[in-house]
Amino acid sequence: MPTITVALGERSYPVHIGHGLMGQAGEYLRRALGECSLAIITDDHVAPLYLQTVEQSLAAAGYRTASIVLPHGEQTKCLDKLSEVYSFLCDSRITRRDAVIALGGGVIGDLAGLAAATYLRGVRFVQIPTTLLAQVDSSVGGKVAVDLPQGKNLVGAFWQPSLVLCDPETLNTLTPEYWRDGLGEVVKYGCIGDPELFRLLEAAAPGGRRGVMTHIDEILRRCIRHKADVVEQDEHDTGLRMTLNFGHTIAHAVEKCQHYTGFRHGEAVSLGMSVITRLSESRRLTEAGSAARLDALLSALDLPMRLPDIPESDLVAAMGMDKKASGKALRIILLDRIGQCRIHTADADFFRGMPRD
Amino acid sequence: MPTITVALGERSYPVHIGHGLMGQAGEYLRRALGECSLAIITDDHVAPLYLQTVEQSLAAAGYRTASIVLPHGEQTKCLDKLSEVYSFLCDSRITRRDAVIALGGGVIGDLAGLAAATYLRGVRFVQIPTTLLAQVDSSVGGKVAVDLPQGKNLVGAFWQPSLVLCDPETLNTLTPEYWRDGLGEVVKYGCIGDPELFRLLEAAAPGGRRGVMTHIDEILRRCIRHKADVVEQDEHDTGLRMTLNFGHTIAHAVEKCQHYTGFRHGEAVSLGMSVITRLSESRRLTEAGSAARLDALLSALDLPMRLPDIPESDLVAAMGMDKKASGKALRIILLDRIGQCRIHTADADFFRGMPRD
Repeated sequence: MPTITVALGERSYPVHIGHGLMGQAGEYLRRALGECSLAIITDDHVAPLYLQTVEQSLAAAGYRTASIVLPHGEQTKCLDKLSEVYSFLCDSRITRRDAVIALGGGVIGDLAGLAAATYLRGVRFVQIPTTLLAQVDSSVGGKVAVDLPQGKNLVGAFWQPSLVLCDPETLNTLTPEYWRDGLGEVVKYGCIGDPELFRLLEAAAPGGRRGVMTHIDEILRRCIRHKADVVEQDEHDTGLRMTLNFGHTIAHAVEKCQHYTGFRHGEAVSLGMSVITRLSESRRLTEAGSAARLDALLSALDLPMRLPDIPESDLVAAMGMDKKASGKALRIILLDRIGQCRIHTADADFFRGMPRD
Repeated sequence: MPTITVALGERSYPVHIGHGLMGQAGEYLRRALGECSLAIITDDHVAPLYLQTVEQSLAAAGYRTASIVLPHGEQTKCLDKLSEVYSFLCDSRITRRDAVIALGGGVIGDLAGLAAATYLRGVRFVQIPTTLLAQVDSSVGGKVAVDLPQGKNLVGAFWQPSLVLCDPETLNTLTPEYWRDGLGEVVKYGCIGDPELFRLLEAAAPGGRRGVMTHIDEILRRCIRHKADVVEQDEHDTGLRMTLNFGHTIAHAVEKCQHYTGFRHGEAVSLGMSVITRLSESRRLTEAGSAARLDALLSALDLPMRLPDIPESDLVAAMGMDKKASGKALRIILLDRIGQCRIHTADADFFRGMPRD
């Protein structure tokens, strides 16, 4: 069973990948946390599928647990729900010695993580990600946040988990939208730094979702190892970590203009990667042929590549509000070629004439 | 002008103490922060007195500023006001490069600090404390928080300021209650680790508030140096920093039972120190005569020493909920003698028979 260590000195932690890990949560937590009480935060999609399995495993390992089931979906990642979680933690008598478990996708991980980062000025937490997106991206690296009406992830912290348990079995229950959501980020890792992963995906894609699942352990391992490498070098997102935002400037603008009710995040990232790469290749900033190769893979994976019908000026305005806008120039990520990227400084004009077909 | 450095590696910062510093804020911030935008958070007691002075100094130094004026008082330290501050920061277009200024007492410092710690996953902040309590205690050390209905400071972070500006002139405008509020914590520093400060206070106290103000620079310097020493050794409050809680276990219980509408915090600390020291001396855990000497000073400073009319069982129950309760035993701070303290482990029974006269 692959284990990846995120090496951050005192804040180091293991990410375990394995089929059926969910049912062994108790043993893993016992080793990582010792004796304490546990507060499980999950949502109404995940609870019917996995909450009992996790609770039973924790009880068998001697843990006292409490749980809260929140509504699924991005709208749960808000200050009101955070406030509910705080009340739940108080009512469950969670102390500084205890820990919070995030059982769910990125929304639950981000919300529970911020609660853990701030409750009693910080308690330990464990990520048990149940979506592909959360497994390859949001559960590793310690970025936790909630949204404000003014934008996504505007309130948050860097708060590393003590342990991440990735059980690929959970991916079998994902709807097609959630599956595509994660695939977008998987392709991203191939693009920005892992040409072998990209080739693996090219080989697996014709076999559809089952084809990809055949290689899922290797895919998860490569994505998480890449994420861990970047986080180890830039925990607080002041430089290199920005490369993980490949495709995200356009993605965030699209999501914002759609009021987060259109594409899912990974789908938006997919089209963002396609659009930015076609744009940069047309300007000779990316090796010729990269965009076509990327689009062929995205297409084979049934991922979107086209901008929705939103005026360019709205998209650019949305980028100006993007919190990644640092002063007046935007720093964006471009591919040198498939498997290698760089940071490029662009003004809003860079985005004029985005391909629409 | 005394400057104390809080040495925390990358997170080190200076605390400047000086008469009229408020009017030189611009120059100090320019040196500490460079060019950026500034969001000032203050309250309706402080704004009429000092906001214009600070804004003018910042404008003269070339800063763009925005400000928000919140209601004064502990009830402002809540999630709702935190949410208002987030909106204000969004509307003021504060980015990761910019900074938040807390202009006010402990409530504003704690609230603004938590906003700074979490907005965009953390922006820089500056403390300009305007009360004695904030100058000697809450503005230094990076503990920031808001209250929940279930208790005080239950949501927070450790987030160090980039700079603290202590202007003793502001102490002249404090009401007697706010003055006593800070004095309680000043006496605490003398008790737990600075016998010379205790003697200085004994000498100054007969001269009343004016007598104490004659020595205020030295008093501030000693208190802040002590706080800085403790924070440097235990930034995240896992051991030594607990000694700063001398008198606080009883104080928190009293404040809670009074629903935070009775004694001010420093006053509650004053009576908490008196009660716990009389209790521990009667049990031969503290050098004989310490309680009488402490009470003489508290009395000369017009600080409270008697428990209000709250049943002991209520106070003990309130302690059980105190977040400093770590498991079933409480760790409390007792004096060996005036000027030296230690950590003592006690169960709830320790508090049976608290002196009532």
